[in-house]
Amino acid sequence: MTLTSGRRPYNFSAGPAAMPEAVLQRAAQDMLDWQGCGMGVMEMSHRGKEFGAILARTESDLRRLLAIPEQFHILFMQGGGLGENAIVPLNLSRGGAVDFVVSGSWSQKSFKEAQRYCKPHLAASNAADGHTRLPEPAAWQLSADASYVHLCSNETIHGVEFQQLPDLAALGSRAPLVIDFSSHVASRPVDWSRVGLAFGGAQKNLGPAGLTLVVVRDDLLGHALEICPSAFNYKTVADNASMYNTPPTWSIYVAGLTFAWLLEQTEGDLHGLAAMEARNIAKAKLLYGFIDGSSFYSNKVAPACRSRMNVPFFLADESRNEAFLAGARDAGLLQLKGHKSVGGMRASIYNAMPLAGVQALVDYMREFERSFA
Amino acid sequence: MTLTSGRRPYNFSAGPAAMPEAVLQRAAQDMLDWQGCGMGVMEMSHRGKEFGAILARTESDLRRLLAIPEQFHILFMQGGGLGENAIVPLNLSRGGAVDFVVSGSWSQKSFKEAQRYCKPHLAASNAADGHTRLPEPAAWQLSADASYVHLCSNETIHGVEFQQLPDLAALGSRAPLVIDFSSHVASRPVDWSRVGLAFGGAQKNLGPAGLTLVVVRDDLLGHALEICPSAFNYKTVADNASMYNTPPTWSIYVAGLTFAWLLEQTEGDLHGLAAMEARNIAKAKLLYGFIDGSSFYSNKVAPACRSRMNVPFFLADESRNEAFLAGARDAGLLQLKGHKSVGGMRASIYNAMPLAGVQALVDYMREFERSFA
Repeated sequence: MTLTSGRRPYNFSAGPAAMPEAVLQRAAQDMLDWQGCGMGVMEMSHRGKEFGAILARTESDLRRLLAIPEQFHILFMQGGGLGENAIVPLNLSRGGAVDFVVSGSWSQKSFKEAQRYCKPHLAASNAADGHTRLPEPAAWQLSADASYVHLCSNETIHGVEFQQLPDLAALGSRAPLVIDFSSHVASRPVDWSRVGLAFGGAQKNLGPAGLTLVVVRDDLLGHALEICPSAFNYKTVADNASMYNTPPTWSIYVAGLTFAWLLEQTEGDLHGLAAMEARNIAKAKLLYGFIDGSSFYSNKVAPACRSRMNVPFFLADESRNEAFLAGARDAGLLQLKGHKSVGGMRASIYNAMPLAGVQALVDYMREFERSFA
Repeated sequence: MTLTSGRRPYNFSAGPAAMPEAVLQRAAQDMLDWQGCGMGVMEMSHRGKEFGAILARTESDLRRLLAIPEQFHILFMQGGGLGENAIVPLNLSRGGAVDFVVSGSWSQKSFKEAQRYCKPHLAASNAADGHTRLPEPAAWQLSADASYVHLCSNETIHGVEFQQLPDLAALGSRAPLVIDFSSHVASRPVDWSRVGLAFGGAQKNLGPAGLTLVVVRDDLLGHALEICPSAFNYKTVADNASMYNTPPTWSIYVAGLTFAWLLEQTEGDLHGLAAMEARNIAKAKLLYGFIDGSSFYSNKVAPACRSRMNVPFFLADESRNEAFLAGARDAGLLQLKGHKSVGGMRASIYNAMPLAGVQALVDYMREFERSFA
């Protein structure tokens, strides 16, 4: 599908999601022969020097991009965010108390799954608000003896995002913070001084589905429960440089192409992640600004808690939803249907979505509204 | 790397391994736009109709290719063979006795990992023979109450393969048979009447790393231990048609291209898997025949137990190993170095390796030998 304008459609999928065109082109070009070695990336032994070079470059680019301090290990794993809902408590809980901040579907799932392995404690929840505003950290009921505190720093489905990570020490907790940053990783800086472990599925902002990124501080390794599968034991994975198991080599390679692309981005004087953040702020401002200025569309999330990445919105007259989606498809604006648990629409505007894509969406939304004036 | 002959090098990697050139070309062509939908496969929501079609086709092609009976579920998972070493006992052991037949490194690892979850019992082992011949089924010490019997039907590292799966009932066991068929899946038919569950990492004979195939009989679902992670609970995965978690969409797509390619293969009057098996027999015969006819090279595996897929071999004078490998690379014969635990050389000649590739290897081996005559 190429539009008459000659551009690719804009893809607003929540994940797996749009990828930078330059990354896709490069991946296609290298398919049969990576850098003259006579093999495509999917065909390489993970223990050979070619893939070793890809992995090393991918890891060092990610470390640079996200400014990950030395005392953190970067692990490339499998199983996605739902897998990590078990893998994190298997590795970190020691079977004891764990505090959960529930801010939407994803943290709710994490809370529930953890019951298999530890004593999860609901420290805070925004369920009563319909997951439209984040619970205030000052009011969190943190345990004295938690092994860690879990939160989802961007809720993909409900579109709420922590604009700042909590300072747990200031809140009276000595526990490390675990964040599920699947759907906003690499869209903004991470304050690693406040984080013990961050995990994320790659398929939203980093690369293809099937790769899970785990960034974990040194001192949190080595405390896994005996029942933790070796392939999902962070210490085992770290000791083997993500090679205990055959890693998802293609997904790592494509994520690496994405990291290199991100590092090259500029926005005025800004480079890399700072440039992406500025672009993401501008995209979110454009879309939320338009929605807030309209009575035809609405977003229910408290402005201070709105996600820059996932923008759920509703038509005042929901009987027009199908017409809205059909017209959007015709205009080359894909995958805008909201998650079934929330309804309405959702525009996911990850790093690979240019400002022009959000502008095209806003133009279409304005036009659609006008057609009913 | 393209040789002066114009052909791609032949890649003998044990996995991730060579893939059919037609599959790679198709994957490259579709990279930015799959069938005119305006998205590449990596960019599609796994819940959209486009990926739904890919998944359904992949599953039905695999069912046809391997003649998988209806009462078996096909699950697309993550974590690889080493992940399954934990996931199988988590799902099937019920914490009780499990019989293991150890025939090489992979089954040994399975046996060891299972200790976290059940009472593994060593029913047979070929360790005393250096993993060069399979233990005779008639001599296996099977338990009366095992939840299942585990074996690795092709040992990638040691190059031993079950030419026939055991009939456990005839051996006095009522337990279902679990096979790790990672490194020979789709190279020969499977006698499903003798199998309860088969698993395999995709990266040898099916597609890219990061996809794990599980084929499991109906009655074996629903018995997982409480500590089994939801994302790795076969019943949960089956109930959600491999969509509980975001599946490794790209890997599934490429595996699907491979299945379609396999179904199209012919060899004389033979089609699909039968054609592949005939080709694999011819390839193995050519290579083992040459090795057995030479005093310069040797293979230590008992002829009846030799793998059609993985052929470890040794030079009589091992001081020539490096020269052999360097010359092979110059001749466009890649990744022939043996596994570190065995040494020597190893040629993995999976489905994607044509007979011409094995012929080129034999020609080179003959030439190399002659140069020392």
